[in-house]
Amino acid sequence: MSKKIKKIHAPSCDWKAPVKTDSATKNKDRINRYKGDGKWAGVKVEKYKNQAGGWASIARNVLIGNCGESAKFHLRYFEISQGGFSSLEKHRHEHVVICIRGKGKIQIGKKKQTLNFLDVAYIAPNTAHQLSNPCTEQFGFFCIVNAKRDRPTQIKKV
Amino acid sequence: MSKKIKKIHAPSCDWKAPVKTDSATKNKDRINRYKGDGKWAGVKVEKYKNQAGGWASIARNVLIGNCGESAKFHLRYFEISQGGFSSLEKHRHEHVVICIRGKGKIQIGKKKQTLNFLDVAYIAPNTAHQLSNPCTEQFGFFCIVNAKRDRPTQIKKV
Repeated sequence: MSKKIKKIHAPSCDWKAPVKTDSATKNKDRINRYKGDGKWAGVKVEKYKNQAGGWASIARNVLIGNCGESAKFHLRYFEISQGGFSSLEKHRHEHVVICIRGKGKIQIGKKKQTLNFLDVAYIAPNTAHQLSNPCTEQFGFFCIVNAKRDRPTQIKKV
Repeated sequence: MSKKIKKIHAPSCDWKAPVKTDSATKNKDRINRYKGDGKWAGVKVEKYKNQAGGWASIARNVLIGNCGESAKFHLRYFEISQGGFSSLEKHRHEHVVICIRGKGKIQIGKKKQTLNFLDVAYIAPNTAHQLSNPCTEQFGFFCIVNAKRDRPTQIKKV
């Protein structure tokens, strides 16, 4: 069976992600098995954002959100290599960040803190934030967001 | 400062959870630090459901959802001891389940499968499901749901 792939512009932290609209997989029960090394079966490692600048050495995996799920949220996994960082940005939608690999830094407003295994961060609407990895080991974290969300604004300084 | 605690009946898989409505904490940035052993600082271990029957040896921790968060989703952590199980149930809202401690069984429809560390399950609307722990080690998993959701229907057989 051929799979219809529709290109959409996902609304945040995103490049044009391929969205599966095949009725055989759309909004269906499934398990994505963890393969180790920050990768899941059936999940493609994507570019963090389409536009360069303001971020480095960060990969993106959409675990929930690319298969026509009706859930009101998306689940992504980001992994930052040594010296890498996400955009310093803010937006109206919330972030929930859960560290699951290594450790790293999270800036929430003006405060920069370490995020360790299974620490859970809630970033409220319009709080500037950034994640970075000053360590040698990979820093990986889930990020949960509303499915419908506004586009982030990159900022230069908090 | 005194904290106002409002009792509400959360709509699913729930007993009457205490909801913090204190303006100092409501919908504010925060980090809940993982303390190990399936526990987080600032998060109370709760009863799985108010009504007994159809479940056993399962604890509930609300990581996102009890502090007036504006996010369209809640994040809970459930932990099942040896021989325990959640309700066999179905509902219109979706579940995303991520195993983070030990391993266990997940029944999705008629199919029972093992869920290992960081495996991610998507349970689509109206699919019967149940989680259980036949192992000696604790089985812990995150479960993400829509903030607004329908009440589950317990079923006896799929």
